[in-house]
Amino acid sequence: MNKLSHFDKNGQATMVDVSDKPLTKRTAIATGRICVNQEIFNAIKNGTAKKGDVLGTARLAGIMAAKKTSDIIPLCHPIPISKIAIDFTLEADTLSVYAKAEAKTTGQTGIEMEVLHAVSVSLLTIYDMCKALDHGMTISDIHLTYKDGGKTGIYTTGEK
Amino acid sequence: MNKLSHFDKNGQATMVDVSDKPLTKRTAIATGRICVNQEIFNAIKNGTAKKGDVLGTARLAGIMAAKKTSDIIPLCHPIPISKIAIDFTLEADTLSVYAKAEAKTTGQTGIEMEVLHAVSVSLLTIYDMCKALDHGMTISDIHLTYKDGGKTGIYTTGEK
Amino acid sequence: MNKLSHFDKNGQATMVDVSDKPLTKRTAIATGRICVNQEIFNAIKNGTAKKGDVLGTARLAGIMAAKKTSDIIPLCHPIPISKIAIDFTLEADTLSVYAKAEAKTTGQTGIEMEVLHAVSVSLLTIYDMCKALDHGMTISDIHLTYKDGGKTGIYTTGEK
Amino acid sequence: MNKLSHFDKNGQATMVDVSDKPLTKRTAIATGRICVNQEIFNAIKNGTAKKGDVLGTARLAGIMAAKKTSDIIPLCHPIPISKIAIDFTLEADTLSVYAKAEAKTTGQTGIEMEVLHAVSVSLLTIYDMCKALDHGMTISDIHLTYKDGGKTGIYTTGEK
Amino acid sequence: MNKLSHFDKNGQATMVDVSDKPLTKRTAIATGRICVNQEIFNAIKNGTAKKGDVLGTARLAGIMAAKKTSDIIPLCHPIPISKIAIDFTLEADTLSVYAKAEAKTTGQTGIEMEVLHAVSVSLLTIYDMCKALDHGMTISDIHLTYKDGGKTGIYTTGEK
Amino acid sequence: MNKLSHFDKNGQATMVDVSDKPLTKRTAIATGRICVNQEIFNAIKNGTAKKGDVLGTARLAGIMAAKKTSDIIPLCHPIPISKIAIDFTLEADTLSVYAKAEAKTTGQTGIEMEVLHAVSVSLLTIYDMCKALDHGMTISDIHLTYKDGGKTGIYTTGEK
Repeated sequence: MNKLSHFDKNGQATMVDVSDKPLTKRTAIATGRICVNQEIFNAIKNGTAKKGDVLGTARLAGIMAAKKTSDIIPLCHPIPISKIAIDFTLEADTLSVYAKAEAKTTGQTGIEMEVLHAVSVSLLTIYDMCKALDHGMTISDIHLTYKDGGKTGIYTTGEK
Repeated sequence: MNKLSHFDKNGQATMVDVSDKPLTKRTAIATGRICVNQEIFNAIKNGTAKKGDVLGTARLAGIMAAKKTSDIIPLCHPIPISKIAIDFTLEADTLSVYAKAEAKTTGQTGIEMEVLHAVSVSLLTIYDMCKALDHGMTISDIHLTYKDGGKTGIYTTGEK
Repeated sequence: MNKLSHFDKNGQATMVDVSDKPLTKRTAIATGRICVNQEIFNAIKNGTAKKGDVLGTARLAGIMAAKKTSDIIPLCHPIPISKIAIDFTLEADTLSVYAKAEAKTTGQTGIEMEVLHAVSVSLLTIYDMCKALDHGMTISDIHLTYKDGGKTGIYTTGEK
Repeated sequence: MNKLSHFDKNGQATMVDVSDKPLTKRTAIATGRICVNQEIFNAIKNGTAKKGDVLGTARLAGIMAAKKTSDIIPLCHPIPISKIAIDFTLEADTLSVYAKAEAKTTGQTGIEMEVLHAVSVSLLTIYDMCKALDHGMTISDIHLTYKDGGKTGIYTTGEK
Repeated sequence: MNKLSHFDKNGQATMVDVSDKPLTKRTAIATGRICVNQEIFNAIKNGTAKKGDVLGTARLAGIMAAKKTSDIIPLCHPIPISKIAIDFTLEADTLSVYAKAEAKTTGQTGIEMEVLHAVSVSLLTIYDMCKALDHGMTISDIHLTYKDGGKTGIYTTGEK
Repeated sequence: MNKLSHFDKNGQATMVDVSDKPLTKRTAIATGRICVNQEIFNAIKNGTAKKGDVLGTARLAGIMAAKKTSDIIPLCHPIPISKIAIDFTLEADTLSVYAKAEAKTTGQTGIEMEVLHAVSVSLLTIYDMCKALDHGMTISDIHLTYKDGGKTGIYTTGEK
């Protein structure tokens, strides 16, 4: 049976009716990465330390994007974000920047899209800031690693 | 030497000054994919055909996102988009939806971020519309495959 | 006596103070129509079935517009939308598309503007998508057919 | 033959490619009206004169909405607006407010949607500001009365 | 000790986690002024009375800006605004327009930024509308005069 | 004679018609400051160096705000921004942060509002990030120091 929640019984797109769901505290975490070449990797690393702040800009872009998620994702409910934080890890062995976003809300629906959106926009911002050096970067592995709250409870991939 | 174009000589974030660049016609193409499970793959496939239009919604989300790229990516210039189109391919062997966005502008700077943003948001929209079935989808392989126009000319990965 | 709620005692525009109003569940329904010529009517009808989805695009436009109502209507309060759905009926006898939007919130103020805005934008989107065929379409009869919740309770025009 | 311009050859929604169209000066005019009861009609009329400015607020709402048209209408191109003005006429015999918007651009595509959007939002703003008195207002007769510029040239309904 | 609340323990920008804070009623008031020359002062004064409404436009701009504060200020939480009002005083002796904004919310965090943003945008709007006469206007003295609610309670400068 | 450019002959707000003005290169510079207490001054200074980047966040907020100026200022034309940069100076003797924004466009109208808006939002962002330490900061002296381009040519206050 097709249970795609954003379609009504006639197969039309709609926002899911959450009007009878209680307000509950919810958390979600998503991660993703961008693979870059050695020159960009070094530039980000040095830039962070002393010449410019690629990751600081990417972090703010992701935080601001989280707040606009329901503007950008058509059938996503607007929810109040009570926390959003984004961390980056520079992984020298894979020449990649790993991004992790965590958000909280007290709402009628989950905050998964907000963290996925924040990760995506953070990585796109890194792309934008480094593309003068090389256009060959790739964004990958964007996925949800954890969520709790709501009727469906905890989902976790077990990633730390 | 650090040549990250979004930082000035003091390492501060800035929008690149494009005021002396000529208006030129520019094209860019980006692709990406979302990997889903069998149940979601079938639901999208059947949904597209008769019960609901995941891909139609994702396409519109991507088109609208392309128009908001400079709102979302902090140091990205606003440019007039003269064309934006998004195509999807359902790949049964990899259980994934492959997205491809192409855009054109006549501007002082390129339209790479717009197509990358369009692909990202299209794939996030697919995630949003299918997450009631499974949260374990992964978005990956978002990259630029082609661009032309401007001083740096053609970039291509050779992908068709 | 002039009781226009958006003006204070000096006749200045202001947002009504709703800070002492309780949160209550509220529903609103609005309708409207766009009159088109025979060629457009057929194109929409056939398009919906197999060649393109005017109404699907219009529905998404309306849903997304509902979420932006307080951005667009100057003195309208931002409220959380817990449901928004839009339906269309193709009326062959009047050569028109009839749109109906229903929304729910749990808020301090009503959700009437959101459904009226959703209907308006849905109909404008139909206009935009069909104007290559004929500019002579007319949007009309946008009105509220039902609301409940809040201090003033139920309003209905009796339309089904 | 289906010539709906926003669909490509596979019937998918897309923004029309205007990249090869020249920049030309373009004008468009749209009108519409909202029918109100006697009490609201008087309140607007008196309000305009001395107790509050429903029409001034509606005018600004329409002007600002014109600038956001491509954000709200999914497949509408962003174009630079070089002029937008909105006028209202209070018609005592029909108990209605008649709105007229005129806009100009120098762009690759027309400015029809901007004036239709401006009229719609102006009328919705009047609704919002007067709904405390009566919810029974109706917005109607929104249509394009004139456009010039571009390949298709002049369209006019002959209305002054 | 550095207690800047928008940075986490590593000095990275983040939105403060307010997820454990209770919803409380909060009020804030901010003021500011713009100094103009005699010609502009007269134009605003006369304009308000009979030829155009600089202050009415500035008031709406400020109200609408208050609703967008969390879009504009990167680490500001989105909160529901239950009231926002802006008043202006024309001060002939200082040739300035004094603006005062008051807002209320029931939220997990304060509404100070909303009133400061509303005052700023109101004054910028006055600048925009009068700059054809003289570019030498100065905006100054934007500050918070009062807030209550939340854990830190009442703050007041004692200004009436 | 009242020459306020945003009002038409009937005193109604309108966007100035710039459709017959040529595209010219234009520059504008604006400055402003926020006065803080010693604790905040030190926190910003140290934060910039090693614990957090108040000024980096404020700079991005200002850059992003510049791109949204025509969304926020009601009668301001949308123009393409080809450069925007913001610099801060920490002035120990006045315990203030001085902000300076410079922008360029090639457009039919000037870019003064964009730099004034960028300065305002940068300073508001500093307020937001430091208000946990003290609410008594004051934003002042926001004014245009330079503009060139367009029919009216160069305006300068002579400030370096």
